[in-house]
Order: sequence, then C-alpha cells, then structure tokens
Amino acid sequence: MTEPETENAGQSAYQRLLDELPRTGLGTRAGEMLRRYWHPVCLSANLKDIPIAVRMLGEDLVIFRDGKGTPGLVGIRCPHRLASLEYGQVREDGLMCSYHGWRFNARGRCIDQPLEPRESALKNNIRHLWYPVEEWGGVAWTYMGPEKENPPPLPKIDVLARTDGVVKLVDGDVRNYNYLNWMENFADMAHATILHGLVVRDLPDELKPYSDTSIKNWTPLPVDHVETDYGMKTVSVLDTGDPEIKFVNTWALAMPIHWRFSGLRSGFPPDFTDERQEGGGMIRIIDDTHFELIRYSLTRKGNFTGGWLFGLPANLKGTVEERTYDKRRYKGWEGLPALEDLVLQESQGAIPDRKLEHLASSDRGVIMMRRLWHQAMEDVAAGRDPKGVSRQANGMLEVDTFHGHIKASELKVGPENMPSSIDGGGLIRDKNGDLVFS
Amino acid sequence: MTEPETENAGQSAYQRLLDELPRTGLGTRAGEMLRRYWHPVCLSANLKDIPIAVRMLGEDLVIFRDGKGTPGLVGIRCPHRLASLEYGQVREDGLMCSYHGWRFNARGRCIDQPLEPRESALKNNIRHLWYPVEEWGGVAWTYMGPEKENPPPLPKIDVLARTDGVVKLVDGDVRNYNYLNWMENFADMAHATILHGLVVRDLPDELKPYSDTSIKNWTPLPVDHVETDYGMKTVSVLDTGDPEIKFVNTWALAMPIHWRFSGLRSGFPPDFTDERQEGGGMIRIIDDTHFELIRYSLTRKGNFTGGWLFGLPANLKGTVEERTYDKRRYKGWEGLPALEDLVLQESQGAIPDRKLEHLASSDRGVIMMRRLWHQAMEDVAAGRDPKGVSRQANGMLEVDTFHGHIKASELKVGPENMPSSIDGGGLIRDKNGDLVFS
Amino acid sequence: MTEPETENAGQSAYQRLLDELPRTGLGTRAGEMLRRYWHPVCLSANLKDIPIAVRMLGEDLVIFRDGKGTPGLVGIRCPHRLASLEYGQVREDGLMCSYHGWRFNARGRCIDQPLEPRESALKNNIRHLWYPVEEWGGVAWTYMGPEKENPPPLPKIDVLARTDGVVKLVDGDVRNYNYLNWMENFADMAHATILHGLVVRDLPDELKPYSDTSIKNWTPLPVDHVETDYGMKTVSVLDTGDPEIKFVNTWALAMPIHWRFSGLRSGFPPDFTDERQEGGGMIRIIDDTHFELIRYSLTRKGNFTGGWLFGLPANLKGTVEERTYDKRRYKGWEGLPALEDLVLQESQGAIPDRKLEHLASSDRGVIMMRRLWHQAMEDVAAGRDPKGVSRQANGMLEVDTFHGHIKASELKVGPENMPSSIDGGGLIRDKNGDLVFS
Repeated sequence: MTEPETENAGQSAYQRLLDELPRTGLGTRAGEMLRRYWHPVCLSANLKDIPIAVRMLGEDLVIFRDGKGTPGLVGIRCPHRLASLEYGQVREDGLMCSYHGWRFNARGRCIDQPLEPRESALKNNIRHLWYPVEEWGGVAWTYMGPEKENPPPLPKIDVLARTDGVVKLVDGDVRNYNYLNWMENFADMAHATILHGLVVRDLPDELKPYSDTSIKNWTPLPVDHVETDYGMKTVSVLDTGDPEIKFVNTWALAMPIHWRFSGLRSGFPPDFTDERQEGGGMIRIIDDTHFELIRYSLTRKGNFTGGWLFGLPANLKGTVEERTYDKRRYKGWEGLPALEDLVLQESQGAIPDRKLEHLASSDRGVIMMRRLWHQAMEDVAAGRDPKGVSRQANGMLEVDTFHGHIKASELKVGPENMPSSIDGGGLIRDKNGDLVFS
Repeated sequence: MTEPETENAGQSAYQRLLDELPRTGLGTRAGEMLRRYWHPVCLSANLKDIPIAVRMLGEDLVIFRDGKGTPGLVGIRCPHRLASLEYGQVREDGLMCSYHGWRFNARGRCIDQPLEPRESALKNNIRHLWYPVEEWGGVAWTYMGPEKENPPPLPKIDVLARTDGVVKLVDGDVRNYNYLNWMENFADMAHATILHGLVVRDLPDELKPYSDTSIKNWTPLPVDHVETDYGMKTVSVLDTGDPEIKFVNTWALAMPIHWRFSGLRSGFPPDFTDERQEGGGMIRIIDDTHFELIRYSLTRKGNFTGGWLFGLPANLKGTVEERTYDKRRYKGWEGLPALEDLVLQESQGAIPDRKLEHLASSDRGVIMMRRLWHQAMEDVAAGRDPKGVSRQANGMLEVDTFHGHIKASELKVGPENMPSSIDGGGLIRDKNGDLVFS
Repeated sequence: MTEPETENAGQSAYQRLLDELPRTGLGTRAGEMLRRYWHPVCLSANLKDIPIAVRMLGEDLVIFRDGKGTPGLVGIRCPHRLASLEYGQVREDGLMCSYHGWRFNARGRCIDQPLEPRESALKNNIRHLWYPVEEWGGVAWTYMGPEKENPPPLPKIDVLARTDGVVKLVDGDVRNYNYLNWMENFADMAHATILHGLVVRDLPDELKPYSDTSIKNWTPLPVDHVETDYGMKTVSVLDTGDPEIKFVNTWALAMPIHWRFSGLRSGFPPDFTDERQEGGGMIRIIDDTHFELIRYSLTRKGNFTGGWLFGLPANLKGTVEERTYDKRRYKGWEGLPALEDLVLQESQGAIPDRKLEHLASSDRGVIMMRRLWHQAMEDVAAGRDPKGVSRQANGMLEVDTFHGHIKASELKVGPENMPSSIDGGGLIRDKNGDLVFS
C-alpha cells in the first residue's frame, strides 16, 4: 500500500471533473451550479390554455398559465395520487388535477380539494413543488435554485429588448445528447474553418465583394479566448490584403446557456452601417442527454436577409448530393453549418467519455470554458454567486460580438473594447463598399 | 446506534407494503397471493390451430388447443434447446416443437421425441412447466398456484352464465402500466364526479327524463365502502328532489381482478323493469407493468343499447375538439369515461411511487382495497386461503351492483342486502316512468 | 463449510462454459479465441468513398478506403474530441475527421492536425486503434488478435477462388441474436428432417426423378459427426431402394464462422457431372446479440439454377397461407428453410440460457461443436494456436461437402475421404440419369 502520488491524485481530480461537468441533476455539483441561473422554459406564445409537460435539468414539471394570465411551473405529479398534471385543467386561479380536482396555484399551494369535507384543513398542509416563473422577451423563464422565494433578477438578453428591428425567436430544435457537446463546439471557433469549410458554399452574387475569401491563412486560425464578466468570448483576427485592415470575428458565450455571434448577416449591403444582424440563442437543458435550442436573431432595416438558413433544414439534408450507398443516419449532410454541427456533436455520443480525449492547442477555448464551469461549481459549493449571476436590478445581459473589418490601429483584443451592436461602434463600410470606422 | 422508533418501524412496514403491492411475479408476496386465484388467459374463440404466446404474472407461456380440442398452457421455451413453442405445431394430442419435434401434452409431459432412438426412455424424464386450463363462459382460465394438480374450483362469473340476454365479451385492451392503477381507480368511486364530470355529456333525448342531473350535491360524493365475501363494494346514496327517494349507485370489486358496475344502461326505457344491463370485466395481469382488460356486458330485451361506448374509442380521441397546439400523447381526451380513466391511470406512471402520495378522505375505498390486498397476502403467507377463494363446488361468483332510485325506507347499506341483477330485487320504474319497487 | 463435491464442481465448470461460449467481447475467453481468426468486415464492392461504421466482436470501428485504394479499419471515435469517424472524409492517404481535420492512416497513425502549429509534434504521439485489413475474394477481412502487426495468413475460402463458374456473394442478412444460435443449428443436421420437413415442398418437375423422396427412414436421421482439421463435418448416410447405393449428405463447419453445404443444387440435371453447386457462407460477428450472414454460392455450367431461393425471402413470408388470427411476428412462416431457421433460431432468445437445456442424442453435433469451441478457448488461454489457424503461406481453406448418391462399397465416413468439389471425386449420374462414379 503506497500513498497515491500527487500527479495521480491531480489526474484523478481532473478525471472526476470531466465526469461531473455534463451532469445537470439536482444534487450534482454541476447541476447545483446550473440552478443558480435563470433558464428558459418555453416561448410565451406557446403557453395557452393547456398545461405543458417540461423536463428541466432532469426534473419533470408542468408549466401552465392560469385564467388570469399568470404562469406557473410546478411538479408534474399531483401530490394526491400521482396523476400527471399535464392532463390537468387550467382554472381561473390555478391548475386543477383532472383526477380528483385538487387545485394548485403558481406557488404550489393547494387551494381546493372538492372531494374533501368543506371544513377540512387538509389542503393547507400540502406543499407542492414549484419554481418561480418570469415572462420577458417572449420567453417564460424559471429559477430552480435555493433562493427561489427571492431569486436574483432575471438577466435580460439585450437582443430580445431591442425595438429597432425585428426579433425572431424559434424553439423546437431538440437534441438527444448532452448540452456541453453544443457549448464546447461554440467555445471552439477553430472547428469552423475545418467543419464548415468542408464544402465551398455559394455566396449570393451581391455579397461576393464582401466575402471572407479575401482572407489568407485561415488554418490554423489565429484565435484568442478572453474571459469576460458574463463568461468568455473568442476573437479571431485575420490578415487581409491590406496590412492596415484586419478581419475580426467574435463569438460570445454567456454562462451557462447563452451564445451569441454575428455571422454573414453583419454589416453587409445594402447600407453597410453598424446595423449588424446578430444571431444567438440559449439552451433549455432538459436532462443529461437532451436539450432544446431556442434561437433568436435581430434583423434591422437594410440587413441582408435572403438565402441564409436560420437553424436546421427541415429535411436534415445538407447540400452534398446523397449517394445511394450512403447508409449513415445523416446522408449528404455536409454544406449547412447548423446541420454540420448537429452531426458532429451528436456523433460524440450522448455523454462523451472525455477521459479518452487528446486535447491540443486548438482546444484552448474548450479548456477555458471547462475552467469557467469548474470555477462556477467551486463558487457555488463555497456559497458564492458564480460568474454572471448579478444582483443588480437592471440585469441586462449585454454581450459583444463582431464580424467584419477593422483598422489594425484600432484593434485591441480584450473583454472591454470590442464593438457591439449596442454601443454602435464599428461602422464597417460605406455604401460604396469602402471601409469607414465610427 | 439506537433502536428504531415504533412509529418509524410502522411507517417503514407500510412503505414496504406499498412497494410490494403492485408486484405480480413468482416469489413476491403479492405475486404469491395472486397465484391463489384463477386468471383469464384468452377468449376461447381465439384459441384455434395456432399456439398463442401469453405472458401471465410475468411468466412466459404458450396456450394452445390440441387436435382433440383440449386446451393446454405450458412454458414457452421448449426444454430441449429452448426454441419457442409459439412456433410449435398443434398436433392431435399436444403441441410439437417445430425445431426437433419434441411433443408435449397439456400436463407438460413429453410424449414424443422423433429424433431419438425408438427405445429411448429419455422423454419420460422431461417435466415441462404447465398450468391447468379450464374453459368456461367463453374464456380459457388458468390457476398458477401451488395446488395446480388439484386447484380450487373456478369461480364462475355470474353474468357469463346468464342465458336471459346477450353477453358480449371483448378483449384486446392492453395497458402499459400496473394493474393496480386500474383497480384503485375502481375502488375510488368519487373520481367519477370529477374526472367523468369534466365535460358535460349529451344524453340521448329519450333518456333525459331519467338523467342523474336531478341529483343535488354530487360533490363531495357521499360514499360508503363495504367489505364483502368476494372483496368490497362501494355504495353512494344521493338525495333527489323527493325526500323519500334516494338515488343509489353501487360498484363491486371481486378480488383480485374482477370489477362490476351497472351504469347508465340500468333500468332505462323502454321497459324500466329490473332488467338492468350490467357492465364489468376482469384483468389479465401480464406482468408488473402490463395488463389486458377483458370486458363483458349483459344486455337483455328492452335495455337501452344505443349511443354508449363499450370500452375505448378506436382513435383514442375524446369529445373535446383537438387544439393544434396540443402536443400531449392524448389530445382532446376529455369526454369519454373509458378514455379518461386510461389517460389518468397511465399518467400515474407504470408503477406509481406510492410513498409520495397524500391520501385524503376521498381515498377510503383505495385504503380499504389495500387493506384487503394486505390481508390476502398475510393469509397466503400463513397458509390460509385468501378472501374469495372458495372450495365449494358451485363456485359461482355473484356480486351485487345497482344503479337507480330506491325508497329511503327500504335502503340499508351493507354487504347483504343490495338489490342485484340476480335476485330480481329493485324494480325501478314502470313503463310510464313512475317509480315502482319490488 | 464443506468442500464442493467433484460432481458439483464439474457441473459448475460446464455451466460456466455454457455462459462463456456465446461471448464475443475483448477480454472474454471466447472473445479472445475468436480474435485468433480472420473475420469478414464487408464486401469490397461496398467500400467506396464513404467511411462505414462497423461493429465487430463488440468493438465500434470504421472501415474506409483511402484515395489510393488502401482499406483501413480504425476505432470509430476520433481520439481528439471523440467525434465519430463515420462522418470523416476520405483523403488520398487516410481518413480525416470532419470536426478538426485530424487525419489517420490505415495503421492508426495521425498524419495531420491542420489546426495545430506547423512545428507541432503532437500528432506523433497519437496511436489510434487500428486492425489490419486484407481484401481477397470480394471481401475485406480483418484480424483483431494480439498478432495484428504480423498476423497469420488469411485462410482463403476455396469457393471464392474458383474461376470455373459464377460465384455469387450476398451480404446484409443481419440477425438480432447470438451467432451460436446459427452455428449450433448448422452443427445439428437432424433438425432439417423435422423443421424443414414441416411443409412438403414442391420440387420442379424436371427434378422429381432425383428427389430425396426415394429415401426411407429419414427419422431418426442416421448421422455421424467427424472432427476435421478445419473444424467438423456432419455426414448422413441413408438407404435407398438399391442396397448397393447410399444417399449421402455432408455439411462442413470451419471454425469459427464458416459453413458449407451442397444442397439440391448438387449434381442435378442437365449434366449430372461432379459440377456440384455449393452453398455456404460466413458470419460477421457484430456483438454478443447481433451478427450478419454473408452467403456465397458457386454455380457452374449446367447446374440447375431455377426456383431456389438464395437466403431469405424479401417479405419474410413462408409458403403457408397466412391466417387472419395469426398474431405472431412471423406469420405463415413455414415452407422456406432459410426462413424456418431464422424463426426457430431467433425464438431461442438473444442469448439462450443453455443451463435450461435437456440435450439428447440428436444433439451430438452440437456437443461436438461446443467441445471444439472449448478446446480452442483452452488452446488460446495456453498460448497455442486454436484449430484451423494455419501458419502456412498458402492458407486456402478447403472443406468437403457432398450431397448425392454413392456406391456403398466406396463409402467410408471419415475426415479424409469425402468427395469434394475440389478434387473432382464423386461423379453422380450420367446424362441419362444413371449412376456413374469417378
């Protein structure tokens, strides 16, 4: 019997972390961390007069809107005889179980038991599982942490607050693997130059003058990862033909479920103003091996809108012609980034066994992301707020993304100075296509 | 280390009982209790020249009818090389395995091994699993208990013995949850006033004068539960407009798989005699999480037969218009009692975790039922016959149900005196619709 | 505490063997034995420009053909971030992961990491799982044993080397049960007289003079099992009307995945030479409960080819008319031997619990087969080559099968002298149908 060596102990702690990271359930270290943040439950527009069963972080719940319009989120099993409240009836002041009529309000109080004697006080002792719901920006959100009676303010996604353009919000893209497969993909910008470069995509004619194909040396992608107050961002600065002009791409990841990027929609014709269209979204974590993507985009007057897909193609087919002898689940899948990401992320397995990985320098973003998750887990275990939980009443979640050209002299990579679509910095081209900076 | 407190020990024993109750397998306390009763295997009409695989109380068996018409029920795996006898061949005197021709009779004896030398005595040593089968009333029944060589007489369901009307027998309604979800629903008459009252059902015009809508104070339902020699019955006595006249509803549950009620079909126009139509049925327990309902009804001359559904609607749709945004498994399900029961029972889960329940006074029927089950388990463990097992040769299982109006002065709730469809008591209305009592 | 009795210990060792026999995975006794043989992976014709996921002996692999035509078989998960190489890209010198571009050659070496700095030596340390592939006879084969750097020569299936007829090779018949259910069926010729005799099959008119129906005393089948250098063969010698003439049927099983028989196609009109058509095949073991059949046949000029099915019927229907009340998975399944075998083998269960068997004299072939498997497992455990593994460079796997009439005086049952389609012995009838011997 010998003492375990320090290296082995360290290795073992890291391997334990790799096992803990993807967990989402109550009582797991990562699940407890996730419960310190607000999570989207469903789009407000879907919350009508039927209760909706939702699995959130491995807990089976039902969300409903009572007759007065108040949303509620409660445990799916009626505490009486365990019938599912998914088949309950929406009533003026709560949700009624269809089996014996027990009625619950949005705070889990039992407010009626019609089969019990009228003088019975039994209902007063029932405390049904509930979580607070806040509706904002077209989404019903919940907070499942220990402070549910008095949760920190909901961090409002800046894009969803915008009134100077059209915000599109799309749900329903449910995946059958762990949400970290998605998040690690997003923390890893370099994959784009390989995976999304497998097939040369046709750019619409009117965009060709502004194509990224002027960029040299895509691979290996020069990329920096910067820790921010909301999480992290990834910045790639590329040389163009003009040594004074750099092409910059930025992606932002706000812990633990938000992402933001501005892609080809940014700063394009016809008006080339700073009216960048932004894409982003958030993850509804269902359980360890399922999640739903809720995507949004902001399109303002003048943004290029044609020909770009928002999310997955309906038929899950890429742009490569399908070969008759292709027997894979996804055939001819290459050519559409959202589908390419789905195929590769799913292929990693429902919960990848990360102990088998061989990380390389291209994984610096993934490593930073895991470090942030680990720190947040440590903070929660020590009773501290994890990164991105703010007690400020405002609670607007502002992240910065950028995709376009910028003067080398104005470029400084860091958490504080990237132009965003909020502060109006970073005008890109004039209507003749010449570079102009604000 | 301290002694467990009495209260905790009692709690623990009750919780252990809750876990044991739904079990059906060999060697479980509840499964051993179930094996002291006869169980339906299939309808006689289905037993033709093909063996039928049947799972009974968690045991995989095959039922067949040999060329002489004798039914047999034996283990599904041939004891030779484990091929399934579901693919066996019916022969004059037994069932032949299609693989190597071993032939078995209805008592599990191997009566031929055509590939063995003619002088071989090997077959005499084969004892294949078998259970006795008795055909009666259109059903093939089996007894899977320790007395299979000499089982107690089959308790014959009175309705199936009736010759004064048309008996309809319907199988094939297979459920994917534990049979107790069904039975507890039946021991709990009060659910009907909530669940089956969610949607106001249209009564055919000719029945409207006799509608239950004259009843006041449906909720909470005044209900009594009475232990009987066959199991239990539930009686609800309701006030009508006339203080001398009560409306009575009775449901009967015969241990452990039979139920009986007489619903809207009872005593209705055009002849209003005591020729009540009765509904009921029995459960074929497949395993812990599956069962099949075998329903029957007795319709005599004059009974109202139109417009009432027997069992589930083919499309599993209720009478409520389906909303496009309803994503539940059962959409627009309300309005048909059999479907309503399916939806709520299934929603409790395959095996509900009863330790999470909060029982109330409306659950007195469920509590009585569990007490009967518990007593039967105790009786079997102590070597006694459980309730309802009779050694009498007659073995007719007579239960009493009632649904209609009765004079208050004639009403006495107890196990002995409810009018039944057998003894002819309880004439309800004359042909003018006036109340008449026998 | 008493010593286990010898009998019990022996029984226990045999029961342990029964449990071990069907295992195929790495580290199991039987799996290690299987890894000393070459196994088919896929047909060469299917290996085009898309990688194919293949599960082999429970290991998830991907087979591909690089741009130079070289086949490779490597672990399916990219060692970088665990994406599936099933979605990799075939490149000139290997297979590239689509996620981050890591490229692997057929020997598991990482030959490019495009996102890493050009001076990085990281890729030199990557050792990805690989197995050698050899293409021969239209099949890509692999050897998954410890000698993979220098495996024993591939034993070439004689039929696939023939150039004097048409070889047909068909894959794609995947089964959802253990491969030994199939192999034990083949080691057990006697089943044919029962299972394949359930339905009298129509022989084409031109074959009726040569039908086996001249044979008397089919049951019990007189059968001998002979151990050979490649495995075992089963010989049945039957009396005909002429006491000088015997009808002989031989099946051969080459360890551990090959089978060969010559059935009704052998020596029939119009030329009655020794140009017997042979049927056979091999098993691709997927895992403990799945395998794929790869069948082949050799048809030479003059062989009867009409009306005989090669493998399973597309609709999985037999020749018996389907009855409306047949609810089994396979309905009306009797009448086609390949389907009859499927139905009965599958019915034994995914992995039959052989401890419940009752073997009889008709199982002598099965018993010999298990003894061979056991001996091979023992040999491998002791570091010896198991039966059929040859170090000779030639490596042709010649087995002998026969189906036809032969002079009683020339008949000697043993491993050395049965006429085969290779040595030309055993001419059967002349063009008038008279018996002629070579």
